[in-house]
Amino acid sequence: MAENTTTTVQEVYAELVARLKEIHDIHSVMGILHWDQEVIMPPGGGDSRAQQLATLAGLSHDKFTSPEIGEWLGQLEAAPESEFNPIELCNIRETRREYDREVKVPRRLVQELAELGSRGHHVWVQAREKNKFNDFAPLLEKMVELKKEWAKCIDPARPAYDVNIDVFERGFTMQRIDPVFERLKAELVPLIAAIQDSDYKPDTSFLQGTFPIAKQKELGQRVIRDMGFNFDNGRVDVSVHPFCGGGDCTDVRITTRYREDNFIESLYAAVHETGHALYEQGRMKDQKALPVSEALTTGVHESQSLFWERMIAQQEAFIERYCGLLAETFPESFRGIDPHTAYEAINVSQPSFIRVEADEVTYPMHVILRYEIERGLFDGSMSVKDLPEIWNDKMEAYLGVRPANDREGVLQDVHWSGGAFGYFPSYTLGAMMACQFYRALEREVPDIRDHVRNGNFQVIKDWLNRNVHSKGKLHDTDTLLTQVTGEPFNPEPFITYLQEKYTAIYRLEGNQARS
Amino acid sequence: MAENTTTTVQEVYAELVARLKEIHDIHSVMGILHWDQEVIMPPGGGDSRAQQLATLAGLSHDKFTSPEIGEWLGQLEAAPESEFNPIELCNIRETRREYDREVKVPRRLVQELAELGSRGHHVWVQAREKNKFNDFAPLLEKMVELKKEWAKCIDPARPAYDVNIDVFERGFTMQRIDPVFERLKAELVPLIAAIQDSDYKPDTSFLQGTFPIAKQKELGQRVIRDMGFNFDNGRVDVSVHPFCGGGDCTDVRITTRYREDNFIESLYAAVHETGHALYEQGRMKDQKALPVSEALTTGVHESQSLFWERMIAQQEAFIERYCGLLAETFPESFRGIDPHTAYEAINVSQPSFIRVEADEVTYPMHVILRYEIERGLFDGSMSVKDLPEIWNDKMEAYLGVRPANDREGVLQDVHWSGGAFGYFPSYTLGAMMACQFYRALEREVPDIRDHVRNGNFQVIKDWLNRNVHSKGKLHDTDTLLTQVTGEPFNPEPFITYLQEKYTAIYRLEGNQARS
Repeated sequence: MAENTTTTVQEVYAELVARLKEIHDIHSVMGILHWDQEVIMPPGGGDSRAQQLATLAGLSHDKFTSPEIGEWLGQLEAAPESEFNPIELCNIRETRREYDREVKVPRRLVQELAELGSRGHHVWVQAREKNKFNDFAPLLEKMVELKKEWAKCIDPARPAYDVNIDVFERGFTMQRIDPVFERLKAELVPLIAAIQDSDYKPDTSFLQGTFPIAKQKELGQRVIRDMGFNFDNGRVDVSVHPFCGGGDCTDVRITTRYREDNFIESLYAAVHETGHALYEQGRMKDQKALPVSEALTTGVHESQSLFWERMIAQQEAFIERYCGLLAETFPESFRGIDPHTAYEAINVSQPSFIRVEADEVTYPMHVILRYEIERGLFDGSMSVKDLPEIWNDKMEAYLGVRPANDREGVLQDVHWSGGAFGYFPSYTLGAMMACQFYRALEREVPDIRDHVRNGNFQVIKDWLNRNVHSKGKLHDTDTLLTQVTGEPFNPEPFITYLQEKYTAIYRLEGNQARS
Repeated sequence: MAENTTTTVQEVYAELVARLKEIHDIHSVMGILHWDQEVIMPPGGGDSRAQQLATLAGLSHDKFTSPEIGEWLGQLEAAPESEFNPIELCNIRETRREYDREVKVPRRLVQELAELGSRGHHVWVQAREKNKFNDFAPLLEKMVELKKEWAKCIDPARPAYDVNIDVFERGFTMQRIDPVFERLKAELVPLIAAIQDSDYKPDTSFLQGTFPIAKQKELGQRVIRDMGFNFDNGRVDVSVHPFCGGGDCTDVRITTRYREDNFIESLYAAVHETGHALYEQGRMKDQKALPVSEALTTGVHESQSLFWERMIAQQEAFIERYCGLLAETFPESFRGIDPHTAYEAINVSQPSFIRVEADEVTYPMHVILRYEIERGLFDGSMSVKDLPEIWNDKMEAYLGVRPANDREGVLQDVHWSGGAFGYFPSYTLGAMMACQFYRALEREVPDIRDHVRNGNFQVIKDWLNRNVHSKGKLHDTDTLLTQVTGEPFNPEPFITYLQEKYTAIYRLEGNQARS
């Protein structure tokens, strides 16, 4: 206590920073270990790896929940705000948020959740394999129950589902999401139906064929490099599920996967993950170990991957840029295909059962379906046992298709097995933000399509670096969006974008799509 | 204190084991990070990686030097030995040894050594590049001084160099090594001279040429697999310097390197590292996280790599085994070469400046030279500034060649820059143990050469697994050697082996070599 009187707040801040850096190192190491596990590790190393990750998670938890952090935060919060610059204030604010979250939940519940999550993954894998939702149902029920209890510990005054959403998409609640998703449903359900009813179907025959993996790899590396991925601070590898991970922002590792009969999936997965990677590589360098430099939310991260995947790489100018290279790389399929034909083929829309394979028009319906189910589970209006039926009914209502079994229905996603409720909305909120960002870029750089056509992606990367990546957690989502786009979160640009684009592709001028 | 009366020693032992496992996990993770750094990491990730390793080293140090460990050890040592089985006794004994080592050295000195070691590596790299020993000399002086101080902390009653040797080769001291190395010098200096004077030179022309790397890779993988490397629990990759590392015994990773103009180097590096890897993969499984399962000493580890590299892969039966495959793989070089000619070529002996490129006859002289210098530095009979001259004089006396500069002389090894004094003797002590082990194997399996000729390496691997790998640290080196070979450490089999083998290859029957 006597010491405190002679310790300045800047010294206390320095102590906090030193501790946070240590924790950051542990997390970066865990990132490398996860990457290694998916890409490199020999099969027999799995048990030891799980043990190593558990040990590091425990060390990091102990370091973060130790009482000093609470004391330091108390001292820093007691000092006048003018003692700190905005970056320091953000680090203090973010540490408080995480600290409260960690210490408010009793250790017993933390362990129970970790145990159930790890068992849950195993049970889910088995249930999906056997196509038997009932094998997974008791675990899912327990998980919802624990996540309700967990939410109560963190904020008993708010609905439990909102507290879950807050982990991924701070600033968003059911009250805010409900009208957005209702509006989206109202617009997209008829658009999807109109696309299905349209007599015009883009020719996709040239996307079928055999595409040698070595050629795909070369093509992918070229596009990733063109986008501005920094290979001095990152790698590209292969894994079963594409992801962006690795260590810190100086060592960002993305993966893709290859199928000989489909190069579009691999290429666009690479573009998507590169979008995530550019966010990570573009963080504030001098704060790289501290919360202020971290990605703002799951949705904002997704806005960056989708910005590149959809707003850039699915636009016609991008296809024009690479059509020649495609013809060179896969002459048997692409020789003589004009860019507009390729553009339409790549943007084909078709309802399907599996979310991760869905196109940009049907994808939001997969998300809304899951959101409605999660909301129902948390407010008690739905029960786990009824989910397969509910799922299939909603699929029929929104997309006009009905899954034949649980594997292509309610059992397809990994998220619930680990208790990641509230994650799904971020996919679509991110898609909407991507559209807002793109509109702003178009206003600032009116000839942006020419830049894309010429492969000058530097202008895009720099714009995102400056406006989004380097901002980290300095502002909340609405403030960031207002700074960059002139308005807070707004779903309308996304709706307009889909309607205009697909009305044109599918010749819907009679506009059944405009309800 | 009240608790202790109700805690059984087995409960205390369990607490110790739990802590040791946590520390083991951290070390395994550091192993993966080191491997990643050498094999995979993008260049820009270096600073963060150094930071991550420093953080983990600090965490492991804190976990290991915490007072509980001292208390637990005290309680366990106070209990009657009969409370424990030999494995448990070994874990307690080894933990005590390491714990004393860690807590006896003041934190100030630990940090100074770490700092100097990390700076030392950088300074050494620069000095070697510029070929200027004087740039490195002040740092080396400081390092010797600190390592003397460090030795005094650990055991003031023993000569400082002995305390340094003890880190790598427990049970060996100057008093024991001096006569071994004197004897070796007396035998090898004339043998090396006789080989040089011999009119007979094996034909090595077919080892020159172009050997496509893809072919070398295939050949290496085949030999590694034949030796019994378990690919479920390991990987083979490429790095600048070959090494054996990775995580724990379920994830053992070796590397080799390739030169288009020399496949022998790569192949034998792979065999050497596989020898190390089989030791690691062969550890006691149920104790894999505890000291009892660890490799006994640096020399014993080296005895395993050299066993395979020299005693097996450099013998004629091994060449007979693979001569056909060599002819298939590199037909332009190897078609028509008979096994005996290949055997002589692969075993050619020739003094050279660089230790890591030396053959089995000249290698010990490189080691003895370094040993004599280290001894001189620690007893004060040599000073750092004279080392280039001393080095070159000894090279001339022992090998008949004089380095033209520091880069091919005193600056060639990394060891001193990090303070690893006392390491070099283990290379040659290991070579001697390898010979002892091989003699024992020959006695037990008289037709061992036939097994090698038939590629039946399982019998060798099983024998080493049973007699060496699975014994870990249960016994000291002399006890282990006595159990396996019938006698304690003995340099004579090695001397006889070299004399007989090279007298035959170089037709030294007039035997100038037998002094």
